[in-house]
Amino acid sequence: MWDAAREFLHTQPGYISTKLHQSLSGDAQYQLINVAQWETPEAYQAATALMRETANLPRIEGVVPGPALYNVIRD
Amino acid sequence: MWDAAREFLHTQPGYISTKLHQSLSGDAQYQLINVAQWETPEAYQAATALMRETANLPRIEGVVPGPALYNVIRD
Repeated sequence: MWDAAREFLHTQPGYISTKLHQSLSGDAQYQLINVAQWETPEAYQAATALMRETANLPRIEGVVPGPALYNVIRD
Repeated sequence: MWDAAREFLHTQPGYISTKLHQSLSGDAQYQLINVAQWETPEAYQAATALMRETANLPRIEGVVPGPALYNVIRD
């Protein structure tokens, strides 16, 4: 499912990269963290809205998405 | 404080990179997310233990750290 979403999103304008992280510990609050880079918030929002409308990706049981937008302020 | 920690940590063995992210929304559950890459969990643990012992960095009021270790499983 992640691969299918990535295949869709990386064709969209403003996509830069995405990395899926899996916790080393079964006790961690978040087992999976995806870090995606986009050129602008608007590009991210347009691409994910289009994906929801058109790509019809399956939900994975037990996975509750919680997306949030951030700027990198130190690097 | 982030800059001081980074100055210390980037001299330690196994350090690769670090990026500090700030939420675009004041309502987000996490206002700051730091993503640091290390060669191994052991390198991260040794460096942060040494930092706590020696660097004497100040706490910032209202900032509660919640570190967790992840592997990148898709890229």
